[in-house]
Formats: sequence, C-alpha cells, structure tokens
Amino acid sequence: MRAVDIIMKKRDGGALSRSEIGFFIAGVTAGTLPDYQASALLMAILLRGMTAEETAWLTDAMVDSGIRVDLGDIPGLKVDKHSTGGVGDKTSLVLAPLAAACGVPVPMMSGRGLGHTGGTLDKLESIPGFRVNLSLEEMRAALVAVGCAMIGQTAQIAPADKKLYALRDVTGTVESIPLISASIMSKKIAEGIDALVLDVKTGSGAFMKTEADSRRLAQSLVSIGNASGVKTEALITAMDAPLGRAVGNALEVIECIDILKGEGSADLVDVSVELAARMLVLGKIAGDRPAAERLVRGAIASGEGLERFRRIIETQGGDPHVVDDYRRLPTAPERHLVRATAAGYVTNLDAELVGRASVVLGAGRDRVEDPVDHAVGIMVLAKPGDQVSAGDAILELHYRDSAKRDRALELVNRAFTLGGQPPAPRAVIVGEVH
Amino acid sequence: MRAVDIIMKKRDGGALSRSEIGFFIAGVTAGTLPDYQASALLMAILLRGMTAEETAWLTDAMVDSGIRVDLGDIPGLKVDKHSTGGVGDKTSLVLAPLAAACGVPVPMMSGRGLGHTGGTLDKLESIPGFRVNLSLEEMRAALVAVGCAMIGQTAQIAPADKKLYALRDVTGTVESIPLISASIMSKKIAEGIDALVLDVKTGSGAFMKTEADSRRLAQSLVSIGNASGVKTEALITAMDAPLGRAVGNALEVIECIDILKGEGSADLVDVSVELAARMLVLGKIAGDRPAAERLVRGAIASGEGLERFRRIIETQGGDPHVVDDYRRLPTAPERHLVRATAAGYVTNLDAELVGRASVVLGAGRDRVEDPVDHAVGIMVLAKPGDQVSAGDAILELHYRDSAKRDRALELVNRAFTLGGQPPAPRAVIVGEVH
Repeated sequence: MRAVDIIMKKRDGGALSRSEIGFFIAGVTAGTLPDYQASALLMAILLRGMTAEETAWLTDAMVDSGIRVDLGDIPGLKVDKHSTGGVGDKTSLVLAPLAAACGVPVPMMSGRGLGHTGGTLDKLESIPGFRVNLSLEEMRAALVAVGCAMIGQTAQIAPADKKLYALRDVTGTVESIPLISASIMSKKIAEGIDALVLDVKTGSGAFMKTEADSRRLAQSLVSIGNASGVKTEALITAMDAPLGRAVGNALEVIECIDILKGEGSADLVDVSVELAARMLVLGKIAGDRPAAERLVRGAIASGEGLERFRRIIETQGGDPHVVDDYRRLPTAPERHLVRATAAGYVTNLDAELVGRASVVLGAGRDRVEDPVDHAVGIMVLAKPGDQVSAGDAILELHYRDSAKRDRALELVNRAFTLGGQPPAPRAVIVGEVH
Repeated sequence: MRAVDIIMKKRDGGALSRSEIGFFIAGVTAGTLPDYQASALLMAILLRGMTAEETAWLTDAMVDSGIRVDLGDIPGLKVDKHSTGGVGDKTSLVLAPLAAACGVPVPMMSGRGLGHTGGTLDKLESIPGFRVNLSLEEMRAALVAVGCAMIGQTAQIAPADKKLYALRDVTGTVESIPLISASIMSKKIAEGIDALVLDVKTGSGAFMKTEADSRRLAQSLVSIGNASGVKTEALITAMDAPLGRAVGNALEVIECIDILKGEGSADLVDVSVELAARMLVLGKIAGDRPAAERLVRGAIASGEGLERFRRIIETQGGDPHVVDDYRRLPTAPERHLVRATAAGYVTNLDAELVGRASVVLGAGRDRVEDPVDHAVGIMVLAKPGDQVSAGDAILELHYRDSAKRDRALELVNRAFTLGGQPPAPRAVIVGEVH
C-alpha cells in the first residue's frame, strides 16, 4: 500500500477502504507517514468528503491509535457531554456536578480554548490548585469518590487525533464534517463511556454558522457514536450571542457557582438543565425527560449540585472555598464599562466579536501553546432583548493592560446593536438529533 | 500574510492574488514554507483549479525563484522544443541538430525519464563521454560553436519547480493543468529563449489520455509562453503506440542517427521534421512552413544534420564516432523475439505497456534517484497497421537479466493485439494550438 495511491483515490472522489484508512492513521500515529502526505490527503478529504462508512472507519482507526479506557468495574452507566464550542459556553461546569449529584458517573475529558471559543480546562484551572491532568488511575479514583472527574485528554487517548489536529490547524483542513466528527468521537469513544450528550452550537459565534450545517454535523456525530456502541444524542443550540453573562475563565466559574446556587441567566440554566436531564435519561437514572429535569432542578434547589462541585474541586486538588469566597479566584485589577449611547433595545450581541475581544484581553489564545490570563474577561450586563437607557452599562471589561483594553473595545463596540423595537425572541435550544 | 489563509482561500474556490502566489513560491524556494502547507495548497489548486491569470503569476513567480538566462549576445532568435513525454519519443535528438544545421540557435534544456516515459538526458548519456551537466558558460560556448546545446536543468533555473515537483510526485498533485503548465513554462522562460515549439502528447501512453485534455494543456502552455514574451506554439501528437521503433536509450540514439542518415520510421520522421520546421519559422530562418520543411528535409538529405549531431556530441565531450560505429554504444548481452501467434494485422500496440516493460528491463526508472541501464530496451518490429504471419517477430527485447525479461514479457504480451482487418489509419499529428 502506498500513501500516494490513497491520496489519489480520494482526490478523484473515491471511497477509501477500511484498510486504506487504517494505513493512513497508523502512519500518522507512528510518524512514518510524512506530514506533507497527510495534509494532502486531509485537503482531498475536506474537498471530496467521506461516506458515513468511511467516517466510522476513520473514527475507529483513531480510537485504535491509543487505548480504549475500560470503566466497566465502576457501577452505573457512564455518561459524558461534549460541546462543539462557543462563547461563554460554560455548561460543563454546571451539568457535570448536577448529573453526578443525581447519580450519573461523569468521566469528562475536555479541551482548552482556541480562537474565540473558550475551553473547560482553562476555566477549571482558574480555580487555585485545580489539577486537570489526572492520570487514568486518578480519574478512576475520582469517579469512585465523587462520581465525576473533569480532566484533559491524556496522551494515551486517540494520539492520532492530536497529531492530525495540529496539522489541520495550519493547513486549512479544520472545516470538514467527517474530520471534525472523527476527531470528536474518537476521543469520546476511547474514554470508555456508555452514552454521550452533544451540544452542537449554531450561529455567528459557532464553528457551524448555519443550522443546516450544524444539523449535518450533529447527525454525523450521533451516527458514529451509536455505531460504536456509545448511545449518543445531540442538542442544537444557538450561539449568536454569548451564553449566560460571563466570558472569561474565573468570571465563568463564578457564574457557574451562582447557577448552582439557584441564581443566573435563564438561557444558561435552561441549556445546562436540558443537557443534564438528557444525561440522566441516558444513564437510566430517570425514565423520561420531565422526571429527569425535576431531579436536576431539585439538585440545584437542594444545594446538592453545589456541594458536589465543591467536592469535585477538592478531589482534584483545588481550593473548595472558592465556592463561598469568590475573592479566592483570580481577579483583574481594572474594569471598564461600555455604555449605551442611546436608548433602545439590545437587538444583537455578536458572540464571535465578544469572544475575540476576550482573547485580546488575554482570556483565550490563538495558538495552542499560548498561556491564558484566568482573571480577565467580559461581563454581559445587557443581553439581546434587554431595554436600555442612554448611558446604561451594556458590557464590563475586566482587564489588566490598557492597550489590550483599547483593542478589545474596538471589537466590542462593533459587537452590539441597539434598535427601537425589541428583537424577535429566539429559543436557545433550536433542535435535537438522535 | 499567513500561508493558512492562502490555503483556505484556494480551498474555498477563490482566486489568489499575485502577491499571495509570490508569497507561496518565495516560501517554497527559501524553505520557510513547511512542506505540509505547500502540499495542502497544491491539493487545493488541483481540485479547485486556477485562472489563466493565476497560472501566469505562478509561472512568473517560479521563473523569479532563479535566474533568467540572458542569451541576447548570441545572434539569432533562440528556439527550443519541449515534449510532454512519451514512449520512444526521441524527436529532440533529431530536430535539434537539424534546426541548428539550418541556422536556428537551440539552447535545449531537457529532463530525465520517469515512469513509463523516457527522457532526453538519459538517451544522450548513453553516448560514451556525453556530458549533459554543462554550466551556463559552457552552454553559451556550445551555442556559439555548434549552434546547439543539449543540457539538464541547472540548479539556478526555476529552483522552486524542483522542490514543488518532488512534493507533487508524492502527494498526488501532479495531474493539474495549471501546475503542469507553470512547471514546464517556468523552466523554458528562464532558459532565455525567444520562441518555443511544444509537442503535447495525447493517448494511452501520454500523460493526457484524451485529446480534449491535451488541447486544454496546450492552450494553457501557449498562453503562458506568449504572455511572457516567448513566442509559443504547440502540436498535439498521438501517443497511443511508441513513436518510431526503438524504446530504450542507446537503441533510440541509433534510431535517431539512422533518421539523420535518411532512414527510419515515417511517423518519427514526420513529427521530427514538422517540429523542426516550426522552429525554423519561429526563428525567422524560413518565411513559411513549406519552405522550412524543404530546408529541414534538405539538411537530412545533405548529411548536414548528421554532421551537426556529430559536432554536438564532440562539443559536449561524447564520442563522435558512435555516429559511424554503433558498437561504441552500450549493447545488451541478450535478445528475445516476441512472435505473432497467428496471422493478421497489428491493430494496437499499447505505448504505456511497452514503456513500462522497458522500465522493467532497466531502461527507465520509477524513482528520480534510480539509475538506468542505457543498453536495454525494446525494438518494435511490427507497428500498428503492419500485416504479420504466424511466427513473425513483433517485438525484440534487448535485456541483461532473464528475470526482468520474464516480467517485461508479461507486459508486452498484453501490449499488442492482432486482428483480421487493418486498423483505421491514424495521423500522428492530430492538432495544433497557437
């Protein structure tokens, strides 16, 4: 088998065989396939596509590039959640403690923020002492102790994905549904979970800008998961405006704790509860979604979710007192209010621009190797649909460096629009696939 | 400017700007653009195409990656010929001495054989002592002394092409008309010629299998040449069967000398004379093609072409006595005749299979770095249209190794077909573009 023949076959629109895909991924994993051949094949895949069968084989091959964790000795159906990434998308920190508190074991492997979207690991690391790089044994112990572990992808999980993603990032081959699907699902399948709830974002601040593309991605992901024995379903949720009110790592942790205390933005609560409820049904803790939702909302009301989060933090080496004292989290030295210049309704708040502004402030990164500043970020004080008077604060920038603040202001000043009429209400949950 | 943005633009079907193409080629030349980005862009170009304007800019950038030779101090219009490659395609060795004998300075830079097609440099090197790696100063001296130099591409000519071609060869990105066009024309434009005649092959043994594709390539090449101030025209010629009778380096040299002596296969003579005549018209040695053809055929009849080839060989360090004594050329130790198993007409002789069989015998190479055996090859004793009796010899293998002979036989036995009726006569010259 020669790599160039596989490349030419895909280039000419052919479907690759399971063994050709296996040869490709084995070569990437072992480092025997040169990057220049891998990137040519990735571009051919992006432009020519892959069948559902090819995508499933690609996912399998990527799972097999590493270990598949066996969590069979831990009682209960293990359920994870994955989001395709958004701005202010912090639902993991809310739903993981809630689902665990309701009895679902949650072995969650997450990623870091990149570009305008944030990452769960960065948010968790804003909690002093919190360790996300647990070994698999430590993850297993945490699951037994508190029913949840929130960690980074270990080197043993789908190592081919790590190499391929680095290459895709610099060769214009990220935006391919088969490649995205295999990347996401190989890591999730390798985690050893029984079921998975996906949150596929759609809109200006999402990777997939249109609902049709988001639905195609959701269908591809669900079909791979179910074919691999991981019961999978997906919500499609709006990402036109930031989710909730906080964008930035420590700010988002505070917002999550507030929600676990029963306070917070309805859009964020609704999506978090819906995702958690689906985890309960998939984990056979509840018989149907209404019952599941009652359990989840009950865990908020009773404080069990908050308590579980405290224990998760403690188990992973973090300071559990942040739950009671937000001053223990990193805080930016400076704040700046962005005010409405006229009265009216906030008709739009562009998630991507707010996300990019938060990256400029230091809350995110454009390159994988860059550090993040956990303290900085943006608070959304007026959300789309809110009525404001001239001079009312719409956004609050939490910053460290005034030059960065000024660059961020250029972005956020373009991010919101005011109008004379309230915008048509838009549901956050726009669809589901299973 | 970021390479990944250029890749994404082409991936999405956009037209690249002159500066984007310049950035790409400068990066390839300097080695600052990683191969994996170059190959992703090459695949995107192959699948998305390039406009005529982009292709011209690409060619310019590749010319500018090295030097553009200035031959302005050598009197007369300098004219070269280039073939897209075929089996038994040895016209360069016939037409270069003829055009030079008629007064056209011919600064010819050629390539080596690869895959089933042969290369002029390998053929010339079968002449003992013949040096193809002349410096530009030696080339200039040869042009002054004998009106012709037949050399390899120097490192100073379009170095970006050398790097790109090596990458295209292993990434399935050879078969792109814009990339092929820029590769061919950048080297020709950099040679410092005033005019160029192209021989674009078409058919089973050619790179372009259909006449429509060959015509598209010819149009692309001619348009680039003329836009760059090199007066360019193209013949489209058939490459379904080998051209002439010899396939293999020393065997082809002998056939060329025979033709310069006035003997030889009509198809090869006709194409060689037609190409040489066009060189005379472009070089303003003759006012029109009939007059040019009379001059070229006159140079065969008078022996001036043969004499000029002898002097070219001598000037480049080769043994000029090969012209009179073929035993001075390398000779294979063994021969094997392939005979007709029934009476009939040769209806087909597949050029690609014959070419591949000659590679198996050692006359060609599959990888650039492989050596060739100048002695071995295949003689075509019965060409398509010839009538044969059972037992008549159709092909003669000149070989060194019986295992290779047997593998070559498997190929040549599939290469010819016999039929009860003579095939429809097919013209060798099937079209022209200018």
